[in-house]
Amino acid sequence: MDKPIQGKGFTKWNGEVWLSDPEEAHGFLANWKVKEVLHQETSDFQEVAVIETVGFGRALVLDGIVQTTARDAYIYNEMITHVPLAAHPEPKQVCLIGGGDCGAAREAVKYPVVERVDMVEIDPKVVEVSRKYLPEVAGEGELDPRIQFYFEDGAAFIREKKRHYDVVIVDSSDPVGPAAALFERPFYETVHQSLKEDGIMVCQSESPMFHPHMLRKVHHTLRELFPVVHTYLAAIPTYPGGVWSFTLASKQLDPLKEMEAVKARLQDGQNRYIDQGLLEGCFKLPVYVKELFR
Amino acid sequence: MDKPIQGKGFTKWNGEVWLSDPEEAHGFLANWKVKEVLHQETSDFQEVAVIETVGFGRALVLDGIVQTTARDAYIYNEMITHVPLAAHPEPKQVCLIGGGDCGAAREAVKYPVVERVDMVEIDPKVVEVSRKYLPEVAGEGELDPRIQFYFEDGAAFIREKKRHYDVVIVDSSDPVGPAAALFERPFYETVHQSLKEDGIMVCQSESPMFHPHMLRKVHHTLRELFPVVHTYLAAIPTYPGGVWSFTLASKQLDPLKEMEAVKARLQDGQNRYIDQGLLEGCFKLPVYVKELFR
Repeated sequence: MDKPIQGKGFTKWNGEVWLSDPEEAHGFLANWKVKEVLHQETSDFQEVAVIETVGFGRALVLDGIVQTTARDAYIYNEMITHVPLAAHPEPKQVCLIGGGDCGAAREAVKYPVVERVDMVEIDPKVVEVSRKYLPEVAGEGELDPRIQFYFEDGAAFIREKKRHYDVVIVDSSDPVGPAAALFERPFYETVHQSLKEDGIMVCQSESPMFHPHMLRKVHHTLRELFPVVHTYLAAIPTYPGGVWSFTLASKQLDPLKEMEAVKARLQDGQNRYIDQGLLEGCFKLPVYVKELFR
Repeated sequence: MDKPIQGKGFTKWNGEVWLSDPEEAHGFLANWKVKEVLHQETSDFQEVAVIETVGFGRALVLDGIVQTTARDAYIYNEMITHVPLAAHPEPKQVCLIGGGDCGAAREAVKYPVVERVDMVEIDPKVVEVSRKYLPEVAGEGELDPRIQFYFEDGAAFIREKKRHYDVVIVDSSDPVGPAAALFERPFYETVHQSLKEDGIMVCQSESPMFHPHMLRKVHHTLRELFPVVHTYLAAIPTYPGGVWSFTLASKQLDPLKEMEAVKARLQDGQNRYIDQGLLEGCFKLPVYVKELFR
C-alpha cells in the first residue's frame, strides 16, 4: 500500500486491507480486498474515495459504502436507465438526480430520441473522481453534449421544474447523508410535478432482503401519487445480498400493459445485462417481495 | 460463546466470532456474525456444523461453507424443486441427490402426483443435524412417508437405475470434496440413463458471477447429452454474489415451449419465492449469462 488507510469502511484484517460494507442489523458483512487506494478526500458532502479492488476492479466509495464497481456497474446503470426510457414512447427530456458516476447518463444517451439529460449531482467531486479514475463507468473523452451538468441539490433543482420532463431517474445513494431527502414523500411530489402528463419516474429502492421497509415505503408512497407503480429487480453482486430493487412510477403509461411495444423500444445492441427478455422478466417478482406491497 | 471456535471458516474479528465464506479469486469475503455454535463434528466426509447467526437464523455449515440458512433456504429449495416438478406432466418417481438438509424433499412432496422421493445423501450426519437443529428447513415431526433415505454415494446409487425416474434433482454442495464428481460428465450420463424417456433433471450450477466457468461447463456438458437444456436464476442472499444458477435438462419436454401448462402445474399455495410469474421470469437471463452458453 502506498498510502495510509483511514476513513470510513476501511479495515485491516489478517494483515491485508479490506473495505467492509456492514449490514449491521443483519449481522452480515461484505468485504472487498483492496489493492490500492487511488484517491481519498473529504468533499463538502461526504468522504469520496476510489479504490482498486482485487476482484471487482476500481470502485467508487462514498462515506465508506461501495457505490459502484467497474465489474458490475453496468447492471445497475442499464437497469435504472433502459427500463424507464424503453417504457416511454418519446423520452426527449430526461432528468437524472444523483448518478455522479455518469454511468446512467451514458446509458440514457444511447437513445437517439433523447434530446437532453439534465444531470443533477450535489457533489461535483463525485463526477470529477469518477471521470478521472473510473473510465469503465464514466466513459473516456468528451461526454455526449446532450448531457448537462448541474451541481445542485436535486430536490431543490426539480422543485423549479413544472411539467417539464418525460423521464426522471433518481439514482441516489442510500437513504443516509445527502440522499436521505430523496426517499421522502415531499421529494416524490416535486418529481411528480416536474413530469409531463405522460411522464415516468424511476428510483433505486434498496435491497428487498436487507431493507424491505424502505422498499415498501417507497412503493407505497409512490402509489399515493401515481396511478401506475411497478417494482423490478436486478442481481447486482456488489450490493450486499446481491438483489436490488428499482421502482417505476408513471402518470399514464403502464409498461406491463404494452410490454411488446416497450421491448421493441429497448436499445440493446451493446447491453451486457438487459435485453428484451430480461426487460419483461425483471418485473416478475418473488412472492416475498410482492407481499411487501400488500 | 459457550464453546471454543475452531474449524474451517470461523474467524475472530474485532473480538467477535464470524463465519467467513471467501471467494478468494475475487477478493470478496462474505461474513456472518455468529451468535452461537450449536453443533460441530467431523463426519466421515466433512466438517459438519450448525450455527446460530445474528441475521440469518440458524445455518448449516459444511467444511466452513454456509450451505443453507433458516432465513432464505426456501428460495433455493423452492427453485431447485418446483421448476422441474412443474415442468414434468407426471413426476411420480423422483430422485434427490444430496439435499441432506431435507428442504428440497419437503418441497417435492407438496406435489400430490409424486409417489416416491429417493433421497440419496452421502453423509447421514447432514440429515441428522438438519433434522435436529434446522426445523425451518428440514421440518418437524415425521417426514412424509413418500421420502425414502439412502445414505450412499449419489453417483453410485444412480448408476444402478435405468429408465426409472421422472425427475432427478441434483442438490449438491460446491464442486469440491464429496460433491466434485457430481459436476462431471460421467455422472450426468448416469443421470441421463436413470431417467425415463420423458425424464427431466435439474442441478444447481453455481454462481454465474463468481463461477461462470463451472456454469458454462455444466450447461455445455448437459447439452451434449440432452436435447433441451435451460439455465435459470434465483436471487439468494446467503450465497456470495447473491445470484445463483440452476440448469434443467430434459429428454423430450421443453418447459419454455409449453410455459402455460408448466405454470398451471406449479403448486404455489404456500410458496414464499416462486409463483407462476416468477417461474416464467426466472428463465429470462441477463445478457452476460447468455453469453456464457455461446
